[in-house]
Amino acid sequence: MTQVKNIQDSLKPIVALCKRRGFIYPGSEIYGGFANTYSFGPYGAQLKKNIKDLWWQTFVQKRRDMVGLDGPILLHPKAWAASGHLEGFNDAMIDCKACKSRFRCDHLIEEELKQSADGLSLEEMTHLVHSKKVKCPKCGAQDFTNARNFNLMFSTHMSKTGSEGDVAYLRPETAQAIFLDFKNIIDTMRVRIPFGVAQIGKAFRNEITPGNFVFRVIEFEQMEIEYFIRGETWEKTFEDWLKSMHDWCKLIGLNKARIHEKEHPKEQLSHYSKRTVDIVYDFPFGTSELYGLAYRTDFDLSRHAEFSGQKIEYTDPETREKFVPHVIEPTFGVERTILALLCDAYDEQQLENGEMRTVLHLHPRVAPVKVGVFPLMKKDPLGPKAQAVFDMLQAHFTCEYDESGAIGKRYRRQDELGTPYCVTIDFDTIENDTVTLRDRDSMEQTRVAISELVATLSAKLI
Amino acid sequence: MTQVKNIQDSLKPIVALCKRRGFIYPGSEIYGGFANTYSFGPYGAQLKKNIKDLWWQTFVQKRRDMVGLDGPILLHPKAWAASGHLEGFNDAMIDCKACKSRFRCDHLIEEELKQSADGLSLEEMTHLVHSKKVKCPKCGAQDFTNARNFNLMFSTHMSKTGSEGDVAYLRPETAQAIFLDFKNIIDTMRVRIPFGVAQIGKAFRNEITPGNFVFRVIEFEQMEIEYFIRGETWEKTFEDWLKSMHDWCKLIGLNKARIHEKEHPKEQLSHYSKRTVDIVYDFPFGTSELYGLAYRTDFDLSRHAEFSGQKIEYTDPETREKFVPHVIEPTFGVERTILALLCDAYDEQQLENGEMRTVLHLHPRVAPVKVGVFPLMKKDPLGPKAQAVFDMLQAHFTCEYDESGAIGKRYRRQDELGTPYCVTIDFDTIENDTVTLRDRDSMEQTRVAISELVATLSAKLI
Repeated sequence: MTQVKNIQDSLKPIVALCKRRGFIYPGSEIYGGFANTYSFGPYGAQLKKNIKDLWWQTFVQKRRDMVGLDGPILLHPKAWAASGHLEGFNDAMIDCKACKSRFRCDHLIEEELKQSADGLSLEEMTHLVHSKKVKCPKCGAQDFTNARNFNLMFSTHMSKTGSEGDVAYLRPETAQAIFLDFKNIIDTMRVRIPFGVAQIGKAFRNEITPGNFVFRVIEFEQMEIEYFIRGETWEKTFEDWLKSMHDWCKLIGLNKARIHEKEHPKEQLSHYSKRTVDIVYDFPFGTSELYGLAYRTDFDLSRHAEFSGQKIEYTDPETREKFVPHVIEPTFGVERTILALLCDAYDEQQLENGEMRTVLHLHPRVAPVKVGVFPLMKKDPLGPKAQAVFDMLQAHFTCEYDESGAIGKRYRRQDELGTPYCVTIDFDTIENDTVTLRDRDSMEQTRVAISELVATLSAKLI
Repeated sequence: MTQVKNIQDSLKPIVALCKRRGFIYPGSEIYGGFANTYSFGPYGAQLKKNIKDLWWQTFVQKRRDMVGLDGPILLHPKAWAASGHLEGFNDAMIDCKACKSRFRCDHLIEEELKQSADGLSLEEMTHLVHSKKVKCPKCGAQDFTNARNFNLMFSTHMSKTGSEGDVAYLRPETAQAIFLDFKNIIDTMRVRIPFGVAQIGKAFRNEITPGNFVFRVIEFEQMEIEYFIRGETWEKTFEDWLKSMHDWCKLIGLNKARIHEKEHPKEQLSHYSKRTVDIVYDFPFGTSELYGLAYRTDFDLSRHAEFSGQKIEYTDPETREKFVPHVIEPTFGVERTILALLCDAYDEQQLENGEMRTVLHLHPRVAPVKVGVFPLMKKDPLGPKAQAVFDMLQAHFTCEYDESGAIGKRYRRQDELGTPYCVTIDFDTIENDTVTLRDRDSMEQTRVAISELVATLSAKLI
């Protein structure tokens, strides 16, 4: 086998495979698509579920210092005033008056003037665009509005009460749902600091420039932890979580060589953060944020205490000392995890017979299908025998039954799905109750007794 | 043991337990709550996950005629024109001019005039309220506006394009995301009719009168299936799914005696349905819809074909006949499943020693914690021994470690969480490697060898 090209150059073959094989479809495609939304098809939905289940198992079910939470997307609007999102969660936008196209002003300046817009005020950006006579990338006109701030939160209205002005926001991060429930959790869960609260759920950002497939989307899922500590221990806890995040990358099988850390410079930190490190990944379009780890101090809990008028503090059960806990926040994007896994796993190989095969080397822990089961032929006695093997395996692993086409084609299809093992039932099976077990990566085939199949696969699939 | 009261009279003790024990907290509670939203606390989040995982396993992973999907909440707005929701998904509302309170007009008529408002037009309802001088239930004034239609979809605006008018809607049902992907699924998944597409996800309804705890909420999760068939087979398929829905109720342990079917009269069917049967449950506040089964005909696929201009049809692989499939739709509400399970499971008992215990008789399949592990005392050698037993069990089941307070209190606490089994490590354990295994429902205690504990519990927990 030889790899024929460095597929990391481009997302294109991955996007094509995702559609062709039912991983990810463009959202609302029959209507021409919608705002870079995506729909996870049958294999994508299962891959996503496997990632989320493994994360929950790892960080909630298997740890005694963590509890789970599943909070609402619609929180009280005051929560977003307290968190700073109402005031500060903006992108500067600018419109071309000629063609009505809208741009992120910092991106426009970076792309058209080849200079950074970091730290510039709205006035400074406007002045730059106007004075340097920036052309509209769409229509070429040199006629821009002033730069304006647009809040990235989607807003909606409640019809519950008579007043029309009842605004609500779709949460732009899952974190705040955890902070709002901090008091309930310490009152009802007998947790002791240090402890964490974990949540998986959707968040929404009204981005003007989504892109790079599922990398930046307006609707996405976060797996997020708020880990509550005494302020003075933050540096040690930060390092511990950085390590846990790397362990997670290893657990799901990401290539270590493509993962790096990126420290946020002090002047670019979010309003709530004292230190932030991104776990970045070498995507085909560049090295970009995969996960984030932030020390949020006691900012959020203090602000919610202030805005709600409630006392939000923790009492040390031994010393009776009361204090506002500080927070370390590891955040994992679900869609970015999927994208990194697909980029890592995607491979095109030329086989010895000259044929090409596309294969996803997904780790068995996350692969949507664990075992493909094929009868060599549909007809009796192979069909019913294969069905019996399928039923036996299906009780233990997610399996797929495929009875149509040449066996080679069926292998190729499972290769593209990232299925780590295939089992073929042939005439020897009828004779001696053994099957062919084929390994996705090495393509080696071995004979295994049906009676040992569950144990053999269990050992390989852990 | 005697049951001291028929707790089915009221939701109150269940709501109180949900908050006290970390199942369900009022949403945004520190800000005084928000629009009847709820947050699933640590045990509620796990209960919810167990239900969703079991549903997915049952209806997707274990069936060869089903595939999964995970589509976006934000769909192309045209989808809601096609589905009929833009035009027809309304509640008639009426406002009190004096106190500005808003009411659902049909509820107002039913409650104040004790007559049905079924089938009345806006004009007829307005006339009734005005001519019969209905009093505002809040302030007593007899000064209502005219009845008006309010769409139940939450709307928001996209900032992506320059035009301010870009409306998007939060999906009021998960179904449409499936219909929009029907073409992609038949093009990429080699599915053969009959087959189904299953999805779990959030939906949003801008209800003016949410209520009865999590029964009616503005933000909720649906587990939904669109099962695609030839139109002529709908009656048989409908009956098959009705049976599967009852099987599901049994699987999660719901009391059969509290479950009934309710056929929708022809004149009350939704615009897309030819037959709808609700699975209803005897909630404390009355017998109300738990799940729904609808025959949606070919309405949705045909409308999307019409509105998108795309050909949406299925080709029979043998006869090459092309046709638009019909749809049977079983819908399962996640929050209602949780509420029914809690109502079923909740029990207050007087023990022989006169003490009271509150217990949730949750089926082990859904219980958030499967096994509680207690050292009789924290100190050596019981603590470390219990920790070793915990680690062993934790690899197989979701366990909880509890080392504080009297053993009786720890049992009571796990009873309230619905934990089916508790394991206590005492001084005999150190002598002979056995533990006490205590059954939640019978409260019987038996000695089990540690070496047999995993097998014993596995057998009980299936």
